[in-house]
Amino acid sequence: MMQRNGLFSIIFATMTRSELIRRIHAKQSYLCVGLDTDITKLPAHLRSHPDAVFEFNKAIIDATKDHCVSYKINTAFYESQGLKGWEAMEKTVHYIPETHLRIADAKRGDIGNTSSQYARTFFEAFPFDAVTVAPYMGEDSVRPFLEYDNKWTIVLGLTSNAGSMDFQKLVLSRPAGGPEAGEEKMLYERVLEKTASWGTTDNLMFVVGATRASDLAYIRTIIPDHFLLVPGVGAQGGSLEEVARYGLNKDCGLLVNASRAIIFADSSEQYAAKATIVAQEYAAEMKALGTGIGH
Amino acid sequence: MMQRNGLFSIIFATMTRSELIRRIHAKQSYLCVGLDTDITKLPAHLRSHPDAVFEFNKAIIDATKDHCVSYKINTAFYESQGLKGWEAMEKTVHYIPETHLRIADAKRGDIGNTSSQYARTFFEAFPFDAVTVAPYMGEDSVRPFLEYDNKWTIVLGLTSNAGSMDFQKLVLSRPAGGPEAGEEKMLYERVLEKTASWGTTDNLMFVVGATRASDLAYIRTIIPDHFLLVPGVGAQGGSLEEVARYGLNKDCGLLVNASRAIIFADSSEQYAAKATIVAQEYAAEMKALGTGIGH
Repeated sequence: MMQRNGLFSIIFATMTRSELIRRIHAKQSYLCVGLDTDITKLPAHLRSHPDAVFEFNKAIIDATKDHCVSYKINTAFYESQGLKGWEAMEKTVHYIPETHLRIADAKRGDIGNTSSQYARTFFEAFPFDAVTVAPYMGEDSVRPFLEYDNKWTIVLGLTSNAGSMDFQKLVLSRPAGGPEAGEEKMLYERVLEKTASWGTTDNLMFVVGATRASDLAYIRTIIPDHFLLVPGVGAQGGSLEEVARYGLNKDCGLLVNASRAIIFADSSEQYAAKATIVAQEYAAEMKALGTGIGH
Repeated sequence: MMQRNGLFSIIFATMTRSELIRRIHAKQSYLCVGLDTDITKLPAHLRSHPDAVFEFNKAIIDATKDHCVSYKINTAFYESQGLKGWEAMEKTVHYIPETHLRIADAKRGDIGNTSSQYARTFFEAFPFDAVTVAPYMGEDSVRPFLEYDNKWTIVLGLTSNAGSMDFQKLVLSRPAGGPEAGEEKMLYERVLEKTASWGTTDNLMFVVGATRASDLAYIRTIIPDHFLLVPGVGAQGGSLEEVARYGLNKDCGLLVNASRAIIFADSSEQYAAKATIVAQEYAAEMKALGTGIGH
Protein backbone atom coordinates (compact mmCIF):
# COMPACT_ATOMS: atom_id res chain seq x y z
CA MET A 1 0.00 0.00 0.00
CA MET A 2 2.72 2.45 0.93
CA GLN A 3 4.64 1.93 -2.27
CA ARG A 4 1.56 2.19 -4.43
CA ASN A 5 0.19 5.39 -3.05
CA GLY A 6 3.41 7.28 -2.58
CA LEU A 7 4.55 9.70 0.08
CA PHE A 8 1.13 10.97 1.03
CA SER A 9 0.01 7.62 2.33
CA ILE A 10 3.29 6.92 4.12
CA ILE A 11 2.21 9.61 6.53
CA PHE A 12 -0.97 7.74 7.29
CA ALA A 13 0.29 4.17 6.91
CA THR A 14 1.92 4.26 10.33
CA MET A 15 -0.68 4.44 13.06
CA THR A 16 1.62 5.40 15.92
CA ARG A 17 0.28 6.18 19.36
CA SER A 18 0.62 9.92 18.85
CA GLU A 19 -1.09 9.71 15.46
CA LEU A 20 -3.95 7.70 16.96
CA ILE A 21 -4.37 10.20 19.80
CA ARG A 22 -4.30 13.09 17.35
CA ARG A 23 -7.07 11.51 15.29
CA ILE A 24 -9.19 10.75 18.34
CA HIS A 25 -9.01 14.33 19.53
CA ALA A 26 -9.63 15.73 16.05
CA LYS A 27 -12.75 13.59 15.64
CA GLN A 28 -13.81 13.68 19.29
CA SER A 29 -14.47 9.97 18.88
CA TYR A 30 -12.77 6.78 20.00
CA LEU A 31 -15.25 4.52 18.31
CA CYS A 32 -14.13 1.28 16.69
CA VAL A 33 -16.64 -0.32 14.33
CA GLY A 34 -16.57 -4.10 14.51
CA LEU A 35 -17.02 -5.83 11.17
CA ASP A 36 -18.44 -9.08 12.56
CA THR A 37 -20.12 -9.60 9.23
CA ASP A 38 -22.34 -12.62 9.79
CA ILE A 39 -23.48 -13.64 6.34
CA THR A 40 -26.81 -14.95 7.67
CA LYS A 41 -27.67 -11.49 9.01
CA LEU A 42 -27.11 -9.49 5.84
CA PRO A 43 -30.03 -7.47 4.45
CA ALA A 44 -32.14 -9.68 2.21
CA HIS A 45 -31.47 -7.69 -0.96
CA LEU A 46 -27.72 -8.32 -0.62
CA ARG A 47 -27.79 -12.05 -0.02
CA SER A 48 -27.79 -13.06 -3.66
CA HIS A 49 -24.91 -10.69 -4.45
CA PRO A 50 -21.83 -12.71 -5.49
CA ASP A 51 -19.64 -10.62 -3.19
CA ALA A 52 -22.21 -9.88 -0.49
CA VAL A 53 -19.90 -9.62 2.52
CA PHE A 54 -17.53 -7.16 0.88
CA GLU A 55 -20.39 -5.12 -0.61
CA PHE A 56 -21.92 -4.86 2.84
CA ASN A 57 -18.62 -3.94 4.50
CA LYS A 58 -17.87 -1.31 1.87
CA ALA A 59 -21.20 0.39 2.47
CA ILE A 60 -20.74 0.18 6.25
CA ILE A 61 -17.24 1.67 6.04
CA ASP A 62 -18.38 4.51 3.78
CA ALA A 63 -21.29 5.14 6.11
CA THR A 64 -19.34 5.20 9.37
CA LYS A 65 -15.79 6.35 8.67
CA ASP A 66 -16.43 9.97 9.64
CA HIS A 67 -17.54 8.91 13.12
CA CYS A 68 -14.96 6.29 14.08
CA VAL A 69 -11.18 6.00 14.28
CA SER A 70 -10.83 2.25 13.88
CA TYR A 71 -12.31 -0.87 12.29
CA LYS A 72 -12.03 -4.31 13.80
CA ILE A 73 -12.38 -7.34 11.55
CA ASN A 74 -13.48 -10.43 13.47
CA THR A 75 -11.65 -13.12 11.51
CA ALA A 76 -14.03 -15.91 12.57
CA PHE A 77 -16.90 -14.57 10.49
CA TYR A 78 -14.69 -14.62 7.38
CA GLU A 79 -12.95 -17.94 7.98
CA SER A 80 -16.28 -19.69 8.42
CA GLN A 81 -17.05 -18.87 4.77
CA GLY A 82 -13.94 -20.71 3.60
CA LEU A 83 -11.83 -19.33 0.76
CA LYS A 84 -14.51 -16.85 -0.25
CA GLY A 85 -14.57 -15.43 3.25
CA TRP A 86 -10.81 -15.08 3.35
CA GLU A 87 -11.04 -13.17 0.09
CA ALA A 88 -13.73 -10.87 1.49
CA MET A 89 -11.48 -10.17 4.48
CA GLU A 90 -8.60 -9.27 2.19
CA LYS A 91 -10.73 -6.89 0.15
CA THR A 92 -12.20 -5.36 3.28
CA VAL A 93 -8.92 -4.60 5.02
CA HIS A 94 -7.61 -2.99 1.85
CA TYR A 95 -10.77 -0.90 1.65
CA ILE A 96 -10.48 0.49 5.17
CA PRO A 97 -8.87 3.93 4.94
CA GLU A 98 -5.33 4.06 6.28
CA THR A 99 -6.47 6.96 8.40
CA HIS A 100 -8.20 4.37 10.61
CA LEU A 101 -6.57 1.79 12.88
CA ARG A 102 -7.16 -1.59 11.22
CA ILE A 103 -7.52 -4.33 13.83
CA ALA A 104 -7.57 -8.06 13.13
CA ASP A 105 -9.57 -9.56 15.97
CA ALA A 106 -8.01 -12.99 15.60
CA LYS A 107 -7.03 -13.98 19.15
CA ARG A 108 -4.04 -15.95 17.93
CA GLY A 109 -1.15 -17.26 20.02
CA ASP A 110 1.15 -20.28 19.74
CA ILE A 111 4.77 -21.28 20.30
CA GLY A 112 7.29 -18.74 19.02
CA ASN A 113 7.91 -20.01 15.50
CA THR A 114 4.17 -20.38 14.92
CA SER A 115 3.25 -17.00 16.41
CA SER A 116 5.82 -15.52 14.00
CA GLN A 117 3.76 -16.94 11.15
CA TYR A 118 0.58 -15.41 12.57
CA ALA A 119 2.32 -12.04 12.92
CA ARG A 120 3.39 -12.31 9.30
CA THR A 121 -0.19 -13.15 8.33
CA PHE A 122 -1.75 -10.03 9.76
CA PHE A 123 1.14 -7.57 9.44
CA GLU A 124 2.59 -8.64 6.08
CA ALA A 125 0.12 -10.75 4.09
CA PHE A 126 -2.61 -8.33 5.23
CA PRO A 127 -2.08 -4.63 6.01
CA PHE A 128 -3.51 -4.70 9.54
CA ASP A 129 -2.12 -2.26 12.10
CA ALA A 130 -3.05 -4.40 15.09
CA VAL A 131 -3.95 -7.96 16.03
CA THR A 132 -5.55 -9.43 19.14
CA VAL A 133 -3.50 -12.14 20.90
CA ALA A 134 -4.38 -14.74 23.56
CA PRO A 135 -1.90 -14.84 26.45
CA TYR A 136 -2.21 -18.43 27.75
CA MET A 137 1.03 -19.63 26.11
CA GLY A 138 3.14 -16.84 27.59
CA GLU A 139 5.99 -14.65 26.49
CA ASP A 140 7.31 -16.42 23.41
CA SER A 141 3.78 -16.59 22.03
CA VAL A 142 3.36 -12.81 22.29
CA ARG A 143 6.86 -11.50 21.43
CA PRO A 144 6.78 -12.21 17.67
CA PHE A 145 3.90 -9.75 17.29
CA LEU A 146 5.71 -7.09 19.31
CA GLU A 147 8.77 -7.33 17.10
CA TYR A 148 7.08 -5.43 14.27
CA ASP A 149 7.78 -1.70 14.21
CA ASN A 150 4.75 0.53 14.23
CA LYS A 151 2.30 -2.33 14.72
CA TRP A 152 0.10 -3.00 17.72
CA THR A 153 -0.37 -6.18 19.74
CA ILE A 154 -3.65 -6.25 21.66
CA VAL A 155 -3.52 -8.88 24.40
CA LEU A 156 -6.60 -10.34 26.09
CA GLY A 157 -6.78 -9.05 29.64
CA LEU A 158 -10.25 -9.35 31.10
CA THR A 159 -12.85 -10.28 28.53
CA SER A 160 -16.54 -9.37 28.47
CA ASN A 161 -18.07 -12.86 28.35
CA ALA A 162 -19.41 -15.04 31.15
CA GLY A 163 -16.49 -17.44 30.68
CA SER A 164 -14.07 -14.76 31.86
CA MET A 165 -14.96 -15.91 35.39
CA ASP A 166 -13.64 -19.43 34.77
CA PHE A 167 -9.93 -18.70 34.62
CA GLN A 168 -9.24 -14.96 34.27
CA LYS A 169 -10.63 -14.24 37.72
CA LEU A 170 -8.98 -17.12 39.55
CA VAL A 171 -7.15 -15.84 42.61
CA LEU A 172 -3.44 -16.54 42.65
CA SER A 173 -1.49 -17.66 45.65
CA ARG A 174 0.09 -14.81 47.61
CA PRO A 175 3.83 -14.54 47.01
CA ALA A 176 5.67 -15.69 50.16
CA GLY A 177 8.05 -12.75 50.40
CA GLY A 178 9.34 -9.71 48.58
CA PRO A 179 7.65 -6.40 47.96
CA GLU A 180 4.44 -8.07 46.72
CA ALA A 181 3.98 -10.27 49.78
CA GLY A 182 0.46 -10.31 51.01
CA GLU A 183 -1.16 -8.94 47.87
CA GLU A 184 -3.87 -11.16 46.48
CA LYS A 185 -4.12 -11.04 42.71
CA MET A 186 -6.23 -12.56 40.03
CA LEU A 187 -4.87 -14.23 36.92
CA TYR A 188 -5.92 -11.41 34.60
CA GLU A 189 -4.04 -8.88 36.78
CA ARG A 190 -0.88 -10.93 36.47
CA VAL A 191 -1.45 -11.18 32.72
CA LEU A 192 -1.74 -7.38 32.49
CA GLU A 193 1.34 -6.73 34.61
CA LYS A 194 3.55 -9.36 33.05
CA THR A 195 2.54 -8.69 29.46
CA ALA A 196 2.97 -4.94 29.97
CA SER A 197 6.63 -5.63 30.76
CA TRP A 198 7.15 -7.23 27.32
CA GLY A 199 6.07 -4.20 25.33
CA THR A 200 5.45 -0.49 25.68
CA THR A 201 2.46 1.80 25.60
CA ASP A 202 3.47 2.41 21.98
CA ASN A 203 3.00 -1.15 20.75
CA LEU A 204 0.77 -2.90 23.26
CA MET A 205 -2.91 -2.55 24.12
CA PHE A 206 -5.24 -4.77 26.12
CA VAL A 207 -8.72 -6.12 25.57
CA VAL A 208 -10.83 -5.20 28.59
CA GLY A 209 -14.54 -5.99 28.48
CA ALA A 210 -17.09 -3.33 29.29
CA THR A 211 -19.56 -5.51 31.10
CA ARG A 212 -18.17 -4.79 34.58
CA ALA A 213 -17.18 -1.14 34.65
CA SER A 214 -15.94 -1.33 38.24
CA ASP A 215 -13.21 -3.68 37.00
CA LEU A 216 -12.13 -0.97 34.59
CA ALA A 217 -11.40 1.46 37.42
CA TYR A 218 -9.22 -1.14 39.08
CA ILE A 219 -7.48 -2.04 35.82
CA ARG A 220 -6.54 1.61 35.37
CA THR A 221 -4.54 1.38 38.61
CA ILE A 222 -2.48 -1.46 37.06
CA ILE A 223 -2.06 -0.06 33.53
CA PRO A 224 -2.86 3.66 33.70
CA ASP A 225 -1.32 4.58 30.36
CA HIS A 226 -2.09 1.76 27.91
CA PHE A 227 -4.79 1.94 25.32
CA LEU A 228 -7.65 -0.45 26.06
CA LEU A 229 -9.82 -2.03 23.40
CA VAL A 230 -13.24 -2.30 25.02
CA PRO A 231 -15.81 -4.59 23.44
CA GLY A 232 -19.18 -5.29 24.96
CA VAL A 233 -20.74 -1.84 24.69
CA GLY A 234 -24.16 -2.09 23.07
CA ALA A 235 -25.24 -5.63 22.14
CA GLN A 236 -23.35 -7.14 25.09
CA GLY A 237 -24.83 -4.64 27.54
CA GLY A 238 -21.97 -2.40 28.65
CA SER A 239 -22.53 1.30 29.27
CA LEU A 240 -20.45 3.85 27.39
CA GLU A 241 -20.88 6.39 30.16
CA GLU A 242 -19.32 4.01 32.71
CA VAL A 243 -16.53 2.98 30.36
CA ALA A 244 -15.64 6.63 29.81
CA ARG A 245 -15.81 7.47 33.51
CA TYR A 246 -13.53 4.64 34.61
CA GLY A 247 -11.45 4.05 31.48
CA LEU A 248 -10.38 7.41 30.05
CA ASN A 249 -6.86 8.61 30.73
CA LYS A 250 -5.15 11.84 29.72
CA ASP A 251 -4.48 10.57 26.18
CA CYS A 252 -7.97 9.08 25.86
CA GLY A 253 -6.56 5.55 26.13
CA LEU A 254 -9.75 3.92 24.90
CA LEU A 255 -11.04 2.32 21.77
CA VAL A 256 -14.65 1.32 22.30
CA ASN A 257 -15.89 -1.28 19.89
CA ALA A 258 -19.46 -1.72 18.75
CA SER A 259 -20.29 -4.34 16.16
CA ARG A 260 -23.82 -5.67 15.88
CA ALA A 261 -25.32 -2.49 17.39
CA ILE A 262 -24.03 -0.56 14.37
CA ILE A 263 -23.69 -2.89 11.42
CA PHE A 264 -26.94 -4.77 12.02
CA ALA A 265 -28.92 -1.81 13.38
CA ASP A 266 -31.24 -2.17 10.41
CA SER A 267 -31.81 -5.12 8.10
CA SER A 268 -33.50 -3.25 5.26
CA GLU A 269 -31.94 -1.55 2.25
CA GLN A 270 -31.42 1.43 4.56
CA TYR A 271 -28.85 -0.45 6.67
CA ALA A 272 -25.97 1.87 5.80
CA ALA A 273 -27.92 5.03 6.56
CA LYS A 274 -28.97 3.52 9.89
CA ALA A 275 -25.34 2.56 10.61
CA THR A 276 -24.38 6.20 10.09
CA ILE A 277 -26.99 7.31 12.58
CA VAL A 278 -25.94 4.84 15.26
CA ALA A 279 -22.21 5.51 14.78
CA GLN A 280 -22.97 9.21 14.98
CA GLU A 281 -24.84 8.66 18.25
CA TYR A 282 -21.89 6.82 19.76
CA ALA A 283 -19.53 9.57 18.60
CA ALA A 284 -21.80 12.29 19.94
CA GLU A 285 -21.97 10.58 23.32
CA MET A 286 -18.18 10.25 23.34
CA LYS A 287 -17.80 13.92 22.53
CA ALA A 288 -20.19 14.84 25.33
CA LEU A 289 -18.31 12.66 27.81
CA GLY A 290 -14.93 14.03 26.67
CA THR A 291 -12.17 12.15 24.87
CA GLY A 292 -9.65 12.25 27.66
CA ILE A 293 -9.18 13.47 31.19
CA GLY A 294 -8.82 17.22 30.87
CA HIS A 295 -10.19 17.27 27.31
CA MET B 1 -17.41 -35.90 1.69
CA MET B 2 -19.75 -38.44 3.23
CA GLN B 3 -22.45 -37.89 0.66
CA ARG B 4 -20.07 -38.07 -2.23
CA ASN B 5 -18.38 -41.31 -1.35
CA GLY B 6 -21.37 -43.24 -0.11
CA LEU B 7 -21.76 -45.72 2.67
CA PHE B 8 -18.21 -47.03 2.63
CA SER B 9 -16.77 -43.69 3.65
CA ILE B 10 -19.45 -43.03 6.25
CA ILE B 11 -17.80 -45.76 8.23
CA PHE B 12 -14.51 -43.89 8.16
CA ALA B 13 -15.79 -40.32 8.17
CA THR B 14 -16.54 -40.48 11.87
CA MET B 15 -13.38 -40.74 13.90
CA THR B 16 -14.92 -41.78 17.19
CA ARG B 17 -12.81 -42.66 20.18
CA SER B 18 -13.28 -46.39 19.65
CA GLU B 19 -12.41 -46.07 15.97
CA LEU B 20 -9.28 -44.09 16.82
CA ILE B 21 -8.23 -46.67 19.40
CA ARG B 22 -8.88 -49.50 16.94
CA ARG B 23 -6.67 -47.84 14.35
CA ILE B 24 -3.88 -47.16 16.83
CA HIS B 25 -3.79 -50.78 17.92
CA ALA B 26 -4.03 -52.07 14.35
CA LYS B 27 -1.08 -49.91 13.28
CA GLN B 28 0.79 -50.11 16.58
CA SER B 29 1.38 -46.40 16.14
CA TYR B 30 -0.01 -43.25 17.72
CA LEU B 31 2.03 -40.92 15.56
CA CYS B 32 0.56 -37.63 14.35
CA VAL B 33 2.46 -35.97 11.52
CA GLY B 34 2.46 -32.19 11.81
CA LEU B 35 2.10 -30.37 8.52
CA ASP B 36 3.83 -27.14 9.62
CA THR B 37 4.67 -26.53 6.01
CA ASP B 38 6.97 -23.52 6.13
CA ILE B 39 7.28 -22.38 2.51
CA THR B 40 10.82 -21.11 3.08
CA LYS B 41 11.98 -24.60 4.08
CA LEU B 42 10.67 -26.50 1.07
CA PRO B 43 13.16 -28.47 -1.02
CA ALA B 44 14.72 -26.19 -3.64
CA HIS B 45 13.28 -28.09 -6.62
CA LEU B 46 9.72 -27.46 -5.38
CA ARG B 47 9.95 -23.76 -4.70
CA SER B 48 9.09 -22.64 -8.21
CA HIS B 49 6.10 -25.01 -8.37
CA PRO B 50 2.86 -22.97 -8.59
CA ASP B 51 1.29 -25.14 -5.91
CA ALA B 52 4.41 -25.94 -3.91
CA VAL B 53 2.87 -26.30 -0.45
CA PHE B 54 0.18 -28.71 -1.55
CA GLU B 55 2.59 -30.70 -3.73
CA PHE B 56 4.89 -31.06 -0.76
CA ASN B 57 2.08 -32.04 1.60
CA LYS B 58 0.71 -34.59 -0.85
CA ALA B 59 4.08 -36.29 -1.11
CA ILE B 60 4.52 -36.20 2.69
CA ILE B 61 1.07 -37.68 3.27
CA ASP B 62 1.64 -40.45 0.72
CA ALA B 63 5.01 -41.15 2.28
CA THR B 64 3.89 -41.32 5.90
CA LYS B 65 0.26 -42.46 6.02
CA ASP B 66 1.09 -46.10 6.71
CA HIS B 67 2.99 -45.14 9.85
CA CYS B 68 0.74 -42.57 11.47
CA VAL B 69 -2.89 -42.29 12.56
CA SER B 70 -3.31 -38.54 12.38
CA TYR B 71 -2.23 -35.37 10.57
CA LYS B 72 -2.13 -31.98 12.21
CA ILE B 73 -2.32 -28.88 10.03
CA ASN B 74 -0.78 -25.85 11.72
CA THR B 75 -3.01 -23.11 10.33
CA ALA B 76 -0.43 -20.34 10.89
CA PHE B 77 1.85 -21.61 8.15
CA TYR B 78 -1.03 -21.47 5.66
CA GLU B 79 -2.56 -18.17 6.74
CA SER B 80 0.79 -16.44 6.43
CA GLN B 81 0.66 -17.14 2.68
CA GLY B 82 -2.62 -15.27 2.34
CA LEU B 83 -5.35 -16.56 0.03
CA LYS B 84 -2.99 -19.01 -1.66
CA GLY B 85 -2.10 -20.54 1.68
CA TRP B 86 -5.74 -20.91 2.68
CA GLU B 87 -6.30 -22.70 -0.62
CA ALA B 88 -3.36 -25.03 0.04
CA MET B 89 -4.84 -25.82 3.46
CA GLU B 90 -8.18 -26.67 1.88
CA LYS B 91 -6.61 -28.98 -0.67
CA THR B 92 -4.44 -30.61 1.97
CA VAL B 93 -7.22 -31.42 4.43
CA HIS B 94 -9.25 -32.95 1.61
CA TYR B 95 -6.25 -35.02 0.60
CA ILE B 96 -5.69 -36.51 4.06
CA PRO B 97 -7.32 -39.97 4.11
CA GLU B 98 -10.48 -40.13 6.22
CA THR B 99 -8.87 -43.09 7.95
CA HIS B 100 -6.66 -40.56 9.76
CA LEU B 101 -7.68 -38.06 12.43
CA ARG B 102 -7.48 -34.63 10.77
CA ILE B 103 -6.51 -31.97 13.30
CA ALA B 104 -6.61 -28.21 12.71
CA ASP B 105 -3.99 -26.79 15.04
CA ALA B 106 -5.59 -23.37 15.14
CA LYS B 107 -5.69 -22.48 18.86
CA ARG B 108 -8.86 -20.49 18.43
CA GLY B 109 -11.17 -19.25 21.18
CA ASP B 110 -13.46 -16.22 21.55
CA ILE B 111 -16.85 -15.26 22.99
CA GLY B 112 -19.61 -17.78 22.25
CA ASN B 113 -21.04 -16.39 19.02
CA THR B 114 -17.55 -16.00 17.59
CA SER B 115 -16.31 -19.42 18.70
CA SER B 116 -19.38 -20.84 16.94
CA GLN B 117 -18.04 -19.34 13.73
CA TYR B 118 -14.63 -20.89 14.30
CA ALA B 119 -16.25 -24.27 14.96
CA ARG B 120 -18.15 -23.91 11.70
CA THR B 121 -14.90 -23.03 9.94
CA PHE B 122 -13.05 -26.17 10.87
CA PHE B 123 -15.94 -28.64 11.18
CA GLU B 124 -18.13 -27.47 8.28
CA ALA B 125 -16.20 -25.28 5.82
CA PHE B 126 -13.29 -27.73 6.21
CA PRO B 127 -13.63 -31.45 7.00
CA PHE B 128 -11.42 -31.48 10.09
CA ASP B 129 -12.17 -34.01 12.83
CA ALA B 130 -10.54 -31.95 15.57
CA VAL B 131 -9.44 -28.42 16.38
CA THR B 132 -7.15 -27.03 19.07
CA VAL B 133 -8.71 -24.39 21.33
CA ALA B 134 -7.21 -21.86 23.79
CA PRO B 135 -8.94 -21.85 27.20
CA TYR B 136 -8.33 -18.30 28.49
CA MET B 137 -11.85 -17.06 27.70
CA GLY B 138 -13.56 -19.91 29.54
CA GLU B 139 -16.61 -22.08 29.08
CA ASP B 140 -18.61 -20.22 26.45
CA SER B 141 -15.49 -19.99 24.28
CA VAL B 142 -15.05 -23.79 24.33
CA ARG B 143 -18.65 -25.09 24.27
CA PRO B 144 -19.46 -24.25 20.63
CA PHE B 145 -16.77 -26.69 19.50
CA LEU B 146 -18.06 -29.43 21.82
CA GLU B 147 -21.55 -29.14 20.40
CA TYR B 148 -20.58 -30.94 17.21
CA ASP B 149 -21.30 -34.65 17.20
CA ASN B 150 -18.35 -36.88 16.41
CA LYS B 151 -15.84 -34.04 16.41
CA TRP B 152 -12.99 -33.44 18.83
CA THR B 153 -12.05 -30.32 20.78
CA ILE B 154 -8.42 -30.29 21.87
CA VAL B 155 -7.88 -27.75 24.64
CA LEU B 156 -4.49 -26.32 25.58
CA GLY B 157 -3.47 -27.72 28.96
CA LEU B 158 0.24 -27.45 29.58
CA THR B 159 2.17 -26.43 26.49
CA SER B 160 5.74 -27.32 25.54
CA ASN B 161 7.20 -23.83 25.18
CA ALA B 162 9.19 -21.72 27.64
CA GLY B 163 6.25 -19.32 27.93
CA SER B 164 4.16 -22.05 29.56
CA MET B 165 5.86 -21.00 32.81
CA ASP B 166 4.45 -17.48 32.63
CA PHE B 167 0.80 -18.20 33.34
CA GLN B 168 0.02 -21.92 33.06
CA LYS B 169 2.20 -22.75 36.07
CA LEU B 170 1.04 -19.93 38.32
CA VAL B 171 -0.02 -21.32 41.68
CA LEU B 172 -3.61 -20.64 42.62
CA SER B 173 -4.82 -19.61 46.02
CA ARG B 174 -5.91 -22.52 48.21
CA PRO B 175 -9.68 -22.79 48.52
CA ALA B 176 -10.70 -21.73 52.03
CA GLY B 177 -12.99 -24.66 52.72
CA GLY B 178 -14.69 -27.64 51.20
CA PRO B 179 -13.22 -30.93 50.10
CA GLU B 180 -10.37 -29.25 48.18
CA ALA B 181 -9.20 -27.11 51.09
CA GLY B 182 -5.47 -27.10 51.46
CA GLU B 183 -4.67 -28.38 48.00
CA GLU B 184 -2.32 -26.12 46.08
CA LYS B 185 -2.97 -26.11 42.35
CA MET B 186 -1.53 -24.51 39.30
CA LEU B 187 -3.59 -22.76 36.65
CA TYR B 188 -3.14 -25.52 34.06
CA GLU B 189 -4.45 -28.10 36.55
CA ARG B 190 -7.60 -26.06 37.06
CA VAL B 191 -7.92 -25.71 33.28
CA LEU B 192 -7.70 -29.49 32.88
CA GLU B 193 -10.21 -30.23 35.65
CA LYS B 194 -12.70 -27.54 34.72
CA THR B 195 -12.57 -28.11 30.99
CA ALA B 196 -12.88 -31.87 31.46
CA SER B 197 -16.24 -31.21 33.11
CA TRP B 198 -17.55 -29.52 29.95
CA GLY B 199 -16.99 -32.50 27.65
CA THR B 200 -16.33 -36.21 27.76
CA THR B 201 -13.44 -38.49 26.90
CA ASP B 202 -15.28 -39.00 23.59
CA ASN B 203 -15.12 -35.39 22.39
CA LEU B 204 -12.35 -33.71 24.36
CA MET B 205 -8.57 -34.08 24.31
CA PHE B 206 -5.82 -31.92 25.79
CA VAL B 207 -2.56 -30.53 24.48
CA VAL B 208 0.20 -31.53 26.88
CA GLY B 209 3.77 -30.71 25.92
CA ALA B 210 6.45 -33.38 26.02
CA THR B 211 9.28 -31.25 27.26
CA ARG B 212 8.73 -32.07 30.94
CA ALA B 213 7.77 -35.73 31.15
CA SER B 214 7.41 -35.65 34.93
CA ASP B 215 4.47 -33.29 34.45
CA LEU B 216 2.86 -35.91 32.27
CA ALA B 217 2.80 -38.43 35.11
CA TYR B 218 1.09 -35.90 37.32
CA ILE B 219 -1.38 -34.91 34.61
CA ARG B 220 -2.40 -38.55 34.29
CA THR B 221 -3.58 -38.42 37.91
CA ILE B 222 -5.94 -35.56 36.96
CA ILE B 223 -7.18 -36.84 33.60
CA PRO B 224 -6.38 -40.55 33.47
CA ASP B 225 -8.68 -41.38 30.54
CA HIS B 226 -8.49 -38.49 28.07
CA PHE B 227 -6.47 -38.59 24.91
CA LEU B 228 -3.52 -36.22 25.02
CA LEU B 229 -2.03 -34.54 21.98
CA VAL B 230 1.66 -34.31 22.75
CA PRO B 231 3.82 -31.96 20.70
CA GLY B 232 7.44 -31.29 21.40
CA VAL B 233 8.89 -34.74 20.64
CA GLY B 234 11.82 -34.40 18.28
CA ALA B 235 12.69 -30.84 17.23
CA GLN B 236 11.57 -29.41 20.58
CA GLY B 237 13.59 -31.99 22.52
CA GLY B 238 11.02 -34.28 24.20
CA SER B 239 11.69 -38.00 24.60
CA LEU B 240 9.22 -40.50 23.18
CA GLU B 241 10.28 -43.11 25.69
CA GLU B 242 9.38 -40.83 28.60
CA VAL B 243 6.12 -39.73 27.00
CA ALA B 244 5.10 -43.38 26.57
CA ARG B 245 6.15 -44.32 30.10
CA TYR B 246 4.20 -41.52 31.79
CA GLY B 247 1.45 -40.84 29.27
CA LEU B 248 0.05 -44.17 28.03
CA ASN B 249 -3.21 -45.40 29.47
CA LYS B 250 -5.13 -48.61 28.81
CA ASP B 251 -6.60 -47.24 25.56
CA CYS B 252 -3.28 -45.72 24.47
CA GLY B 253 -4.57 -42.22 25.18
CA LEU B 254 -1.77 -40.54 23.29
CA LEU B 255 -1.23 -38.84 19.98
CA VAL B 256 2.40 -37.84 19.67
CA ASN B 257 3.03 -35.16 17.11
CA ALA B 258 6.24 -34.69 15.18
CA SER B 259 6.44 -31.99 12.55
CA ARG B 260 9.81 -30.64 11.48
CA ALA B 261 11.61 -33.84 12.50
CA ILE B 262 9.65 -35.70 9.81
CA ILE B 263 8.62 -33.28 7.10
CA PHE B 264 11.93 -31.42 6.97
CA ALA B 265 14.16 -34.40 7.74
CA ASP B 266 15.72 -33.95 4.32
CA SER B 267 15.74 -30.93 2.03
CA SER B 268 16.72 -32.70 -1.18
CA GLU B 269 14.49 -34.32 -3.80
CA GLN B 270 14.50 -37.35 -1.52
CA TYR B 271 12.51 -35.55 1.21
CA ALA B 272 9.51 -37.85 0.96
CA ALA B 273 11.57 -41.02 1.15
CA LYS B 274 13.37 -39.62 4.17
CA ALA B 275 10.03 -38.68 5.77
CA THR B 276 8.95 -42.32 5.38
CA ILE B 277 12.08 -43.49 7.15
CA VAL B 278 11.70 -41.10 10.07
CA ALA B 279 7.96 -41.77 10.47
CA GLN B 280 8.72 -45.48 10.37
CA GLU B 281 11.32 -45.02 13.12
CA TYR B 282 8.80 -43.23 15.33
CA ALA B 283 6.22 -45.96 14.69
CA ALA B 284 8.73 -48.71 15.37
CA GLU B 285 9.71 -47.10 18.66
CA MET B 286 6.03 -46.77 19.58
CA LYS B 287 5.46 -50.43 18.78
CA ALA B 288 8.44 -51.43 20.90
CA LEU B 289 7.21 -49.32 23.82
CA GLY B 290 3.65 -50.66 23.46
CA THR B 291 0.55 -48.75 22.42
CA GLY B 292 -1.25 -48.94 25.74
CA ILE B 293 -0.89 -50.28 29.25
CA GLY B 294 -1.37 -54.01 28.90
CA HIS B 295 -0.87 -53.97 25.13
